[in-house]
Amino acid sequence: MARPKPLSGFPEFLPDERIVEQTVLDTLRETFELHGFGNIETRAVEPLAQLSRKGEITKEVYVVRRLHADEADQDELGLHFDLTVPLARWVLEHSGALQFPFRRYQIQKVWRGERPQEGRYREFTQADIDIIGRGELAAHHDVEVPLVMLEALERLHERIGLPPVLMHVNNRKLSEGFYRGLGVTDTPGVLQIVDKYDRIGAQATAQLLVDELGLDAGVAERCVELATIRSDDTGFVDRVRALGVADELLDEGLAELVTLLEEANRRVPGRLCADLSIARGMDYYTGCVYETELVGFESMGSISSGGRYDSLASDGRNSHPGVGISLGVTRLLGPLLARGQFVVSRPVPTCVLVAVDSEETRDRALDVAAVLRVRGIPTEVAPRADKYGKQIRYADRRGIPFVWFGPRVGEIKDIRSGDQQPADAADWTPEEVDLHPRVLPAE
Amino acid sequence: MARPKPLSGFPEFLPDERIVEQTVLDTLRETFELHGFGNIETRAVEPLAQLSRKGEITKEVYVVRRLHADEADQDELGLHFDLTVPLARWVLEHSGALQFPFRRYQIQKVWRGERPQEGRYREFTQADIDIIGRGELAAHHDVEVPLVMLEALERLHERIGLPPVLMHVNNRKLSEGFYRGLGVTDTPGVLQIVDKYDRIGAQATAQLLVDELGLDAGVAERCVELATIRSDDTGFVDRVRALGVADELLDEGLAELVTLLEEANRRVPGRLCADLSIARGMDYYTGCVYETELVGFESMGSISSGGRYDSLASDGRNSHPGVGISLGVTRLLGPLLARGQFVVSRPVPTCVLVAVDSEETRDRALDVAAVLRVRGIPTEVAPRADKYGKQIRYADRRGIPFVWFGPRVGEIKDIRSGDQQPADAADWTPEEVDLHPRVLPAE
Repeated sequence: MARPKPLSGFPEFLPDERIVEQTVLDTLRETFELHGFGNIETRAVEPLAQLSRKGEITKEVYVVRRLHADEADQDELGLHFDLTVPLARWVLEHSGALQFPFRRYQIQKVWRGERPQEGRYREFTQADIDIIGRGELAAHHDVEVPLVMLEALERLHERIGLPPVLMHVNNRKLSEGFYRGLGVTDTPGVLQIVDKYDRIGAQATAQLLVDELGLDAGVAERCVELATIRSDDTGFVDRVRALGVADELLDEGLAELVTLLEEANRRVPGRLCADLSIARGMDYYTGCVYETELVGFESMGSISSGGRYDSLASDGRNSHPGVGISLGVTRLLGPLLARGQFVVSRPVPTCVLVAVDSEETRDRALDVAAVLRVRGIPTEVAPRADKYGKQIRYADRRGIPFVWFGPRVGEIKDIRSGDQQPADAADWTPEEVDLHPRVLPAE
Repeated sequence: MARPKPLSGFPEFLPDERIVEQTVLDTLRETFELHGFGNIETRAVEPLAQLSRKGEITKEVYVVRRLHADEADQDELGLHFDLTVPLARWVLEHSGALQFPFRRYQIQKVWRGERPQEGRYREFTQADIDIIGRGELAAHHDVEVPLVMLEALERLHERIGLPPVLMHVNNRKLSEGFYRGLGVTDTPGVLQIVDKYDRIGAQATAQLLVDELGLDAGVAERCVELATIRSDDTGFVDRVRALGVADELLDEGLAELVTLLEEANRRVPGRLCADLSIARGMDYYTGCVYETELVGFESMGSISSGGRYDSLASDGRNSHPGVGISLGVTRLLGPLLARGQFVVSRPVPTCVLVAVDSEETRDRALDVAAVLRVRGIPTEVAPRADKYGKQIRYADRRGIPFVWFGPRVGEIKDIRSGDQQPADAADWTPEEVDLHPRVLPAE
């Protein structure tokens, strides 16, 4: 078999890169569970009809079919392209067994048949948190959800040197109320065009509003002026007011955004700003919307997005409003790993290699290893009874920091410093930093 | 949308069941890493040509295709049906970046288009460990790998009351050497028929050997006699010798199996037996083979199987021998969960619910929660400022054991006992058993 080639769009990590990813996933899980989010996983496939509901995405779906499917087995299935559509289905399927508001996190691979490019993958891992109500869901959850994600990202910033983030937030009520107050009726149409503001600029946005929606030039200009407003405190309120538009929905949106800004500045100062250009393409958002940039890596686009939706799903009797945010784990890590942003202290879990004198005494080495493992010290036994120098080189090539010589009461060598000391495997303990592989920011 | 129906063969766990699964996966990871196995994940898809190499499995593969694939984009891809075929491809692709022997574990979903039935799924999670050499791989790894899996299963037995296991082992060299010593040339043919011994019994097996392979009745009988040998110590050697067959390969196989039995009896006594009926269908095994039954649940079949293969993959210059074993996580848990084998102390991670006096003092409750979380205590804040009784019932319905009242220096109530005490969130700590959800065997 010739050396296989990678499949474009299907990234795979080497063991040291996977350690970075595991560290990220462990930190997300820890943070989400600290906030009372429970985990679920949903199956990888959904009925195709379910996946095609959102027109735009249909073309990116992967269809799945048994190679030798017979006529009677024509279930049309597709791989899920996000974790929101499966959640909606899952909540309806199991609503009788759930308590609402239901708090869940979900970390799984998703698949999209997109054209592969940096940060765009065909298979990638997403990490989502959502809070789902039944009938109603209090507005304070719209403040809670983005702050949980920011806390997780902040922990990653502190632990492994993930670049800091800046979350940009807006509120659909604010934008739609403002447009309505200007007498515009096609508010979704305005949102769709304003969503392009970041890429095409103020002038082109105003022109599109006039050309495509038939807005007066003055109205179009004020829609664009709203989109230019950005502040890291509640100063945005005065700037919106200064535009002289009055509307109840606008007031509601302003109040919700103020609460979010104030709370964010208490909990994770400097990581969240009001940015009234944020629209989000999806039409199901009805309140707060969130996008998140990695500072210094803005060209990567949003790494974590979400918002409030008034109806995730409905079974006719009950509607399920919700608020959620999703982190694109692969999308975040792929470019950073490719740029060598992180250093891993070693690519293997092993902390100690137990040297073997001869194949006849391998059992003694296995005993030493067992004693170390009982106390949680990852240990392997040398695969060959080579000369000690060769066994040390074996450890060195793998980044294993310690080599054990002799029986349980024997000697331990730190092969980085060359220091060798008598030790008893029943009580010898490495420094905490050497116990497991560690992820550090590259200098 | 009407209530969706489950898809047959695609099991999904409720939050409390998922906690059982997470506990199992955490324990596997802990054990594998203690033994120096590093983690990798491979993409879900492989080129279809790669997946179809093994005739028998072809029909069970799921083909994956973009819904709107154009002519130029006719990559034929399929979902992987195990983690061994992807590992072989991955090792060849990255061999330049790896150190051999390479130790890896891999925990991922796999897909098979099988007819769904209990314990047979179309989507399920497997956990595999393998040690891969380059050119050569010492025989002691054939002893190591099954013992690592047994250690993980033993830990699960102790921690969550997983029923004990019994691993049945044989050695291909032993069987093939024995058949060869009898003058049989089609030794793979004999293995394939002997593989049915457990299901069809001694007489039918002997008959098949005569009818299908043209063996003498006496030879067939001795092949079957070999398959009847089973012992939990090295006693099997004398019983094989008593059959009076002499062959070098047989001697080699006997010696390897003796080493495995002796080591297993030292490390995990009572969990492994020699069972010379074990053949394993796959033709790539060349040494030790392993199958594992759950005691009391033998009808579930083998939950963990594997063996030694002399060539996992080859790039022409280097061949990669290996030894591995796979645990069918979903296959193990599905039937046990359905039988109510486990109890989970609560279905949510939350340890403390902070009560809210009024929406005006929600901030104070958020502060208390933040102080508790800093010390690793999973905490959520009550979603509504209802009467205290209602907030306690909210906690109770979720199984949250504690409710906090008042500010940081406030009161904590254990709602199970009704006991309420003054407490400071900066130093109050729950009992270790209450900090996280726990999995216990059902009585």
